[in-house]
Amino acid sequence: MLTLSEDILTKTIRTRPDNSYKGTYGRIVLVGGNANFGGAIIMASTAAVYAGAGLVTTGTDTSNLSSLHANLPETMFVNYYDKVKLSQLVSDATTVVVGPGLGEDFHSEEVLATVLANTNADQTVIIDGSAITLLAAHKIDTPAGNLIYTPHEMEWQRLSGIKIGEQTVEANQVVQKQFNATIVLKKHHSEIYTKTDTYQLPIGTPAQATGGMGDTLAGMIGGFTAQFENQQNAVLAAVYTHSAIAEELAQSQYVVLPHQISQALPSFMKRYAN
Amino acid sequence: MLTLSEDILTKTIRTRPDNSYKGTYGRIVLVGGNANFGGAIIMASTAAVYAGAGLVTTGTDTSNLSSLHANLPETMFVNYYDKVKLSQLVSDATTVVVGPGLGEDFHSEEVLATVLANTNADQTVIIDGSAITLLAAHKIDTPAGNLIYTPHEMEWQRLSGIKIGEQTVEANQVVQKQFNATIVLKKHHSEIYTKTDTYQLPIGTPAQATGGMGDTLAGMIGGFTAQFENQQNAVLAAVYTHSAIAEELAQSQYVVLPHQISQALPSFMKRYAN
Amino acid sequence: MLTLSEDILTKTIRTRPDNSYKGTYGRIVLVGGNANFGGAIIMASTAAVYAGAGLVTTGTDTSNLSSLHANLPETMFVNYYDKVKLSQLVSDATTVVVGPGLGEDFHSEEVLATVLANTNADQTVIIDGSAITLLAAHKIDTPAGNLIYTPHEMEWQRLSGIKIGEQTVEANQVVQKQFNATIVLKKHHSEIYTKTDTYQLPIGTPAQATGGMGDTLAGMIGGFTAQFENQQNAVLAAVYTHSAIAEELAQSQYVVLPHQISQALPSFMKRYAN
Amino acid sequence: MLTLSEDILTKTIRTRPDNSYKGTYGRIVLVGGNANFGGAIIMASTAAVYAGAGLVTTGTDTSNLSSLHANLPETMFVNYYDKVKLSQLVSDATTVVVGPGLGEDFHSEEVLATVLANTNADQTVIIDGSAITLLAAHKIDTPAGNLIYTPHEMEWQRLSGIKIGEQTVEANQVVQKQFNATIVLKKHHSEIYTKTDTYQLPIGTPAQATGGMGDTLAGMIGGFTAQFENQQNAVLAAVYTHSAIAEELAQSQYVVLPHQISQALPSFMKRYAN
Repeated sequence: MLTLSEDILTKTIRTRPDNSYKGTYGRIVLVGGNANFGGAIIMASTAAVYAGAGLVTTGTDTSNLSSLHANLPETMFVNYYDKVKLSQLVSDATTVVVGPGLGEDFHSEEVLATVLANTNADQTVIIDGSAITLLAAHKIDTPAGNLIYTPHEMEWQRLSGIKIGEQTVEANQVVQKQFNATIVLKKHHSEIYTKTDTYQLPIGTPAQATGGMGDTLAGMIGGFTAQFENQQNAVLAAVYTHSAIAEELAQSQYVVLPHQISQALPSFMKRYAN
Repeated sequence: MLTLSEDILTKTIRTRPDNSYKGTYGRIVLVGGNANFGGAIIMASTAAVYAGAGLVTTGTDTSNLSSLHANLPETMFVNYYDKVKLSQLVSDATTVVVGPGLGEDFHSEEVLATVLANTNADQTVIIDGSAITLLAAHKIDTPAGNLIYTPHEMEWQRLSGIKIGEQTVEANQVVQKQFNATIVLKKHHSEIYTKTDTYQLPIGTPAQATGGMGDTLAGMIGGFTAQFENQQNAVLAAVYTHSAIAEELAQSQYVVLPHQISQALPSFMKRYAN
Repeated sequence: MLTLSEDILTKTIRTRPDNSYKGTYGRIVLVGGNANFGGAIIMASTAAVYAGAGLVTTGTDTSNLSSLHANLPETMFVNYYDKVKLSQLVSDATTVVVGPGLGEDFHSEEVLATVLANTNADQTVIIDGSAITLLAAHKIDTPAGNLIYTPHEMEWQRLSGIKIGEQTVEANQVVQKQFNATIVLKKHHSEIYTKTDTYQLPIGTPAQATGGMGDTLAGMIGGFTAQFENQQNAVLAAVYTHSAIAEELAQSQYVVLPHQISQALPSFMKRYAN
Repeated sequence: MLTLSEDILTKTIRTRPDNSYKGTYGRIVLVGGNANFGGAIIMASTAAVYAGAGLVTTGTDTSNLSSLHANLPETMFVNYYDKVKLSQLVSDATTVVVGPGLGEDFHSEEVLATVLANTNADQTVIIDGSAITLLAAHKIDTPAGNLIYTPHEMEWQRLSGIKIGEQTVEANQVVQKQFNATIVLKKHHSEIYTKTDTYQLPIGTPAQATGGMGDTLAGMIGGFTAQFENQQNAVLAAVYTHSAIAEELAQSQYVVLPHQISQALPSFMKRYAN
């Protein structure tokens, strides 16, 4: 297992070419946030915008529209029950994030099915949170796209069938190959199983142990993969950045709030761009 | 009566163990905020999140959903009239805060009854504001749990039957023992009646004399008890922290706003963690 | 005509007594903000809270509830069409502000009538904006209370019958005496007609010339009169503070936003407290 | 083609006269923001307010009301489907901005038609985003007013009929003359075609390549033309300011968020006022 290092940032975060426009930096759709968990998709969308994604649309319950734009006027909105619009937006995207705060009832499942029926092989699709649990529980066909799963250990157990105590690198690698996907296994010193290698994140702080951190990470992976060409490096750099910012903030904070990580992204990324 | 001192902070605010996750820091449900007093439960929830509680859910009127997430995407939401969901969330919590902005009509009473019917002996239950008044007025059975009441003097009169002019330490201690609960009696130099001792808060500033301060304190007590093992120390440390931050802010402010206390929590707590 | 000076601040802004509580600093109700002008009552309420008013309630259209608490969780809310609750709140208040963003249709008139029917001689009542226009247009009885009108020149023309070109100090004083009220005539170098004297504000900046400044001033007058005993000085100090903060901010800003004045209140007032 | 330079700022941004009031700085109405793209009109309105426009009203879908005032209490609101009120507001305005987030369906078209039917020759009318696409697709009569179009290259293709590869200065000038309007052609090194000259913007940064930048620019052009007498210089100064602020922020940020540009306006403009 390789150890992820700060190098991944300079390798990934490129200086933007002068003659570029918002379309250059991806068209990302984030889907989640039911009537109870709207904050999750707000935090994920915030992370995507502050990471620099070009065009961001949030598909969520209409009850979250006001708070979404109160936090983030920079995103566009779609009612995630509007199948026609959601299907179109997902089809047209370069990057899809599905799951933050999606919930696990039959409405959530219907939304998830709409999303996954419209992805294609040219897209990167990040599957997070409740979407992982739903995929594990229901026999939904594996969607098209460059798939990235971001489970915590219990979600990984549900998805892979490997019990938490038995989630060895070797066992995880076997399932990763079956899935032909990237797995970001969130835990103390998270592990990232890419199609070619396995990495461990050596940094992180318990000040990150608070609700919404995973949603923010999912949005950041979306924002990074939407912008940076090498999709594997983009995932690795997003994971590293998430904890590196948290470590910096934790030098003066007992707990780090998810939205603070997003707000720190523009200045943090600037320091590594080259 | 013992005098509370800064020591309680270093005794209570532990450096977080590296291998911890959000579940380590509690699962807290805050219930309150009717259609008129939504700000109260927003302020209480904000305090819980910024204090570092692991997983925070806010049970409130649906009319407060947009402003709740506009202020605080880090919390989850439940409609407090949804008895099934609210009962489940309260049952599953480690810590319950009920009362900020709950109101005193029959709807409020119904919500309170749902909450108190679902607490259990393993939980810490903070009863604040209107919930105290309702408990005093209606003969609701004493709920299960490690109970913490946070009355101001008039609410204490209603709950204890001791008139404001007669609220001596001795008289209060008698009722505290009958209740077998912790009492945080909010006043100039607040008094805390625990199961073993009585403490007086020697600090505080009149810049704190503004609406919402009590709601913020209730949320902080929730956040501290959700995280720190010694429940008595957690209450004492929360009370001390609330006024210590206010004193610091009051050095340059004529009035201190409740949300400013919450925002100062992460850096304040960091200075005392060990 | 006397010239208002910085002295009014040290004369008015008292160091808060240690043994005080939120009730010491007034119970203020601000009424305004129809479905079109909700921002006005939000700005007025924000000013009252940041000035240090003890307990603040905002009576407004329900369509403004979410944005009100998104900006200011510290205020309480009442639907201004709920005559029972609004009447009770106004009756119980120490200070009433009516007018910011109230509008001028028959709904506005109805709300205004409810407010003015419930004031009493012990209260300070600030009448601003549309409320002045409505009073001038309809023959509403002069309400009970220590009345403070805050018209700009056109509103003063409507209320007093004195045309803008003829609003001399002498003419204004005559009407002020008839009204037995305090008049804050907002203009370049505003004039304040109290029951005993006439003052001119020597400070101010054109960076203040932006929508919402008057709403903010009305809220500040509410916050100051709610807290400080000498009601005449409280009005004068609020008017002076409003422009003094604007001048400070204008040293580095081309335009000063109303909410920035409110946010600067706690530190500004601290410097003058004694 | 002339090169736009920093001079345009000192030539345009005047020190405000002492004896001025909010009406001196224009009465601007911004119309856009359907149920999906509410953030766009919020960002445009924010830019207009922070640029110093005197009185700002936002015409948008009612679903955007809460987030509008959560972001910006300084603006007034009108439901853009209320034809009577919208027509009146547009008629009474000095400056109209139409298009940010308006959308392209038949509702959008109806709103646009209402706006354009009520402009007059004394007004400056900024036509942005979807409004350009709608104008190009439907044969809507050219409205009255000093027209300013702010297309990106694809929108300019739709409006002018000149394909992106063929948008030479000469070809653009021909169409500009036919339109008798100012064209702000947004691209890497934007071009501004005024009634007398053609300018190129020599500054800008790829950190600006993110959704909402164009909406912010449209609002700034509205805010500048509302305040500054020379309408041509006002447009040029707004375009220059937008990129100059972005360049400053980009020195420490990888991406610049649109709302950050607006928030920087008051201090940036102060430095150039004379």
